[in-house]
Amino acid sequence: MVSISTLGGKMNHLSGVRAIMNDIEQTLKSSKGSFVNLSPGNPLIIPKIKTLLQNQNKKLIDSLEYEEIMCKYGATSGYRPFITSFLNYFNNKYNLNFKEENVLVTPGSQLAYYYAINTFAGIFDNGIIKKVFLPQSPEYTGYSNMGIDHSLLKAIKPSIVFIGDHEFKYHINFDEFDLTDVGVIIFSRPCNPSGNILSDDETQKIIKLAKKRNIPVIIDSAYAPPIPNLCYSDMRMFFDSNVINIMSFSKAGLAGERIGVVIGQNEFIDPLKAFQANACIHAPKTGQVILIDAFKILENICLNDLKAFYVNKITMVNELFRKHLKKNVPYFLHTTEGTFFKWIWFKDLPINDWELYKKLKENRVIVVPGSTFFPGINDKWKHKEECIRISTTASNQDIRSGIKKISEVINTLY
Amino acid sequence: MVSISTLGGKMNHLSGVRAIMNDIEQTLKSSKGSFVNLSPGNPLIIPKIKTLLQNQNKKLIDSLEYEEIMCKYGATSGYRPFITSFLNYFNNKYNLNFKEENVLVTPGSQLAYYYAINTFAGIFDNGIIKKVFLPQSPEYTGYSNMGIDHSLLKAIKPSIVFIGDHEFKYHINFDEFDLTDVGVIIFSRPCNPSGNILSDDETQKIIKLAKKRNIPVIIDSAYAPPIPNLCYSDMRMFFDSNVINIMSFSKAGLAGERIGVVIGQNEFIDPLKAFQANACIHAPKTGQVILIDAFKILENICLNDLKAFYVNKITMVNELFRKHLKKNVPYFLHTTEGTFFKWIWFKDLPINDWELYKKLKENRVIVVPGSTFFPGINDKWKHKEECIRISTTASNQDIRSGIKKISEVINTLY
Repeated sequence: MVSISTLGGKMNHLSGVRAIMNDIEQTLKSSKGSFVNLSPGNPLIIPKIKTLLQNQNKKLIDSLEYEEIMCKYGATSGYRPFITSFLNYFNNKYNLNFKEENVLVTPGSQLAYYYAINTFAGIFDNGIIKKVFLPQSPEYTGYSNMGIDHSLLKAIKPSIVFIGDHEFKYHINFDEFDLTDVGVIIFSRPCNPSGNILSDDETQKIIKLAKKRNIPVIIDSAYAPPIPNLCYSDMRMFFDSNVINIMSFSKAGLAGERIGVVIGQNEFIDPLKAFQANACIHAPKTGQVILIDAFKILENICLNDLKAFYVNKITMVNELFRKHLKKNVPYFLHTTEGTFFKWIWFKDLPINDWELYKKLKENRVIVVPGSTFFPGINDKWKHKEECIRISTTASNQDIRSGIKKISEVINTLY
Repeated sequence: MVSISTLGGKMNHLSGVRAIMNDIEQTLKSSKGSFVNLSPGNPLIIPKIKTLLQNQNKKLIDSLEYEEIMCKYGATSGYRPFITSFLNYFNNKYNLNFKEENVLVTPGSQLAYYYAINTFAGIFDNGIIKKVFLPQSPEYTGYSNMGIDHSLLKAIKPSIVFIGDHEFKYHINFDEFDLTDVGVIIFSRPCNPSGNILSDDETQKIIKLAKKRNIPVIIDSAYAPPIPNLCYSDMRMFFDSNVINIMSFSKAGLAGERIGVVIGQNEFIDPLKAFQANACIHAPKTGQVILIDAFKILENICLNDLKAFYVNKITMVNELFRKHLKKNVPYFLHTTEGTFFKWIWFKDLPINDWELYKKLKENRVIVVPGSTFFPGINDKWKHKEECIRISTTASNQDIRSGIKKISEVINTLY
């Protein structure tokens, strides 16, 4: 066997949720009969968005620039007409003054996190080791397995506030906040998996504390305004000098084309751009071209159609759990402030989340066990093993039968 | 200022040729008047190829799978119909038996080199440091600035064989071959910048020596058969168990879409696939879909049209240099066995290649100074500073006037 470097070995571990996605894929492939699959992270595509993308794509093919776009190498930062169109839209919307040099287009936002984590954290020339700090937990697992050592991920447990009988919400536990040895802070807002949105006050406080220590704050805006804007409570966007916003167009419906956009001050963009120049030259151009002059339209479809669509789904999911789960089961639905996920906590669950995942699989329902979403929380903590994430992107019929089945299994367990 | 990790710092250096590309871009942008630009690495697009890509792209837009392709996440390995179509074509062509698990599609081949270099070389768990060995020199500079320390690049000087009065060819100097502490071997075949093709015997010998030590050999096939097949002398393809072939579709005319294909045994593909799953999820799908069922047609256009096109260009370039350079100037044209570049050596050049670059720029001709193409050759060696690379993708008129000007400058220098 070939030997693998330390970094290669680290990249060889699939992060929790991807390992489980593999298991799900194998299950769906190899098993007979059908499953209700409530696990997917894939966005739901509404016809208006598909039509918009298709029409824009047609324009690209008929464009006089076709050869320039598809056949020629492009600039490291991104395709200039895309950046210009994006900045016109974005600066105007938020009354900002970002320039071309404040933008980096990447082949998907995941790669932007890879560049950023490995640039702002890890081993430094003076021998110091700087950590990636995740102030919010549970959190997107994609920030782990990024090459840097696992022990360099640092996270803190949240505080939990109960709302009524069967609802709860995470808050940041600022008492445990410690930025010693931190190189970069990252959080998703809205948060995958919990659907939480860090409040404006919480966000502002993190940014301020980080600024004092010259630490960049990366805000994963994959579900944020203005696109896809899967937010069901108000949230302000932040553009402080130490903030790097990373946008994605995947959740609005361009997941297959891999377009991430990094927006921030030069001092952050420049090293990420150099990383990209060396590691992968530039992002593919189709996805960029498709979006030119379409930002406003896409924003409106997201706001008027996509958001309403998910609001209905989430309401339905909440009602179904409340209908089917016994009142005396200590279940708690996380307030869904954003994303298309529902996060459910079964307090004092008699089995752990992986056993629950397997039991549900036997009952032909697939969910994502919650313990995969606590990167950096390494101590034993029962809460980690009492949650599941389900996606509301499934059909109404699947959501109905899936939640009924989950509830039956849970009711029997308590 | 934000501080940057050691790895970030290394990625922050632009490799030689990219630094110069920046200078060229700035020159072209800021200067008045026009330049003859003989530097670009961009492929020349012949109408047949553009039409093929455009038609395939049209099919994608009308496809019932449009939503699945553009809007949904895909598999880490690549879009399955692409892989199936590619394997049907490739296995049949070379009488091979590669399976789906032997293929990884990346967002451009550059990122595949990044994964591979950082997986098979660098620091290992046992504390050992393994190097990237470049047996051929000059070589593509894109293998440097890949995160691992510069001192981990190891290269050997070639031996030089003169052919007639004004031609020469590089050969591998097997006497200096030393695979101690080597983690991976990489070479481009055909070679950018020299246009050299390592002979079948040389290639076989490298593979054999590496195999004895369990070292993977990466063959950069960006200009190789079957696509784009920019080869003007015969070359065999190698599929030994320790060989990883990395293909690109950029030089055939899909540079803007970033499609690289890695082909090799599972033990190599698996860790690279995991790297990709964590670092960037998957390659964009448009470029892949465009190529489905088009491999044979593209191969034929490359063979019958593109190759003939470049043969004419290269013949023209050779004739122009022989016509304009004085007989007593000790210039040597490297035998162009492949690629669309011409590599010229001005033996005992009174100035170095950067000074020549600047002098030519003053004369409104842009070339690439050769010293940027010797990654890993760290000792002072006059030959490194006596060469330039020009691209034959320019128009005939530009090639004529550019070479005339270069020759005038050179004739005056001697």
